[in-house]
Amino acid sequence: MSNFNTVTAHYRKIQEEACAILEQCETSATFTRDPWNKKIGQGLTRIIQGGDKIEKGAINFSEVEGQVSNQMAQALEIEGSCFKATGVSSIFHPKNPFSPIIHMNIRYFELDNGNCWFGGGIDLSPHYIDRKQAGYFHRSIKKVCDDFNADYYALFKKQADEYFYLTHRNETRGVGGIFFDHLKPVTKQNFNELLNFTVQLGALYPRLYSQLLDDTYSAEYQQKNKDWQDIRRSRYVEFNLLFDRGTKFGLESGGNTESILASMPPQAKWAYNFEPDKDSYEEETLSLLKKGINWLQY
Amino acid sequence: MSNFNTVTAHYRKIQEEACAILEQCETSATFTRDPWNKKIGQGLTRIIQGGDKIEKGAINFSEVEGQVSNQMAQALEIEGSCFKATGVSSIFHPKNPFSPIIHMNIRYFELDNGNCWFGGGIDLSPHYIDRKQAGYFHRSIKKVCDDFNADYYALFKKQADEYFYLTHRNETRGVGGIFFDHLKPVTKQNFNELLNFTVQLGALYPRLYSQLLDDTYSAEYQQKNKDWQDIRRSRYVEFNLLFDRGTKFGLESGGNTESILASMPPQAKWAYNFEPDKDSYEEETLSLLKKGINWLQY
Repeated sequence: MSNFNTVTAHYRKIQEEACAILEQCETSATFTRDPWNKKIGQGLTRIIQGGDKIEKGAINFSEVEGQVSNQMAQALEIEGSCFKATGVSSIFHPKNPFSPIIHMNIRYFELDNGNCWFGGGIDLSPHYIDRKQAGYFHRSIKKVCDDFNADYYALFKKQADEYFYLTHRNETRGVGGIFFDHLKPVTKQNFNELLNFTVQLGALYPRLYSQLLDDTYSAEYQQKNKDWQDIRRSRYVEFNLLFDRGTKFGLESGGNTESILASMPPQAKWAYNFEPDKDSYEEETLSLLKKGINWLQY
Repeated sequence: MSNFNTVTAHYRKIQEEACAILEQCETSATFTRDPWNKKIGQGLTRIIQGGDKIEKGAINFSEVEGQVSNQMAQALEIEGSCFKATGVSSIFHPKNPFSPIIHMNIRYFELDNGNCWFGGGIDLSPHYIDRKQAGYFHRSIKKVCDDFNADYYALFKKQADEYFYLTHRNETRGVGGIFFDHLKPVTKQNFNELLNFTVQLGALYPRLYSQLLDDTYSAEYQQKNKDWQDIRRSRYVEFNLLFDRGTKFGLESGGNTESILASMPPQAKWAYNFEPDKDSYEEETLSLLKKGINWLQY
């Protein structure tokens, strides 16, 4: 029997809760509520723009189904002819350049050949890397992971380093986090555990980001810092359009374009051969965009 | 015998000439001259930024060689184990929102199995579509095409409509132009003709764009027009990172990232669900981003 509806019910609730929590943090803007219906399925897009802490962000829920195309089979490494998929996807671009960009996704896939699995991840992309903030972020995620499996954090942290990587820039997207896919339940009980794991991540996410925003939103900054933020945002655009599997899957399977590309920053800049000043905070940040850093130590 | 060096000599000259012509048009900025050498080959990147007419632009030459990877074979629909490739690639983002973005590429490929071919294209992406300008642009290109083959323009215009298309937006990148690939010489004389065809396109390009800039650079505009320009530029970013074969090929084959992504606009904006005012010039422009329009009629 399909567990699809059980998952969608939980994920809808995650979306609702996350919006409520972040609306308490962001006092000057609220989330829109845009339900959509297309041939491929339906969803609820919730967007926030122009806030004092959040410049642009989205928490989207969707449930879709369709044929597995050759392109999809290849891109997502899956077999089967029909799929169902549901998930919550979220990205926030903060106003203050000293606040970090954050991303979270939890998702569930079912194929008509009986296979099903969970996937997801959370990762943080500060425009300016603060080691203590990165440490706090990683420890918070590790705590949720450890409640389910002592091996999860180390494994999924490594996978995030590999996944959130811009090969053409030789840099990670940010300080990473966790990334997992094809987490297949082997029993009914295991299904509930895995579902609960993604639900707990979804519950952590808005609380953690509220905390990070509260810590940073009032930091003083200058135009030079905003310009750097726009340059870092351009790398975020590059990652999402060149590498992100969710974006590819969404656009190729005929999903809702405006919902999918709600992940784009409000603004981005590209300057040819931009190099930060020597010994600047910008230069230090670039030097930390590397795989394999143990952020727990900070 | 390989004709590779013959082509590179011509293409280097095309680059040199185009920069000189556009520097005469753009009086307040000049092109940098950044030669590069990497494992895959070499090139000369020429960038112009912050001009009165051109906000950011590039005319790049490169000659590269390497192994045909599986990814490349698939993306470019080619067979063979080693390739050589050379080309001139150019994009200009104008300062004035009423000036159009332009793109030109001419390229030559050789495989170790003896196959070789030319490819390329020119297309125009106005932020605001002016039918007369589009007509002039298409007629100018058609004239060069007609000198070589009476069928070229109609065929290559159709291919441009197909290629410069954002499927997820259901819109063309702009008013199109021409696009061709796998143009294989059948005799030595035919090789010279095809080479000359690409050289003539390369010669037309800077003259044509200088004309379009001169016609438009002094048009009055307001902040609202600049904002619309930034939104149209975001569509340009989406095309280049999601669909453009040259960008994919360049990045995947280990090309020079800063040269390849010199095509990115200086700045871009994404607004969720942006819709232009009813009966505005912006709305009219969107309505004209369609395949199959006969621009020659204007």
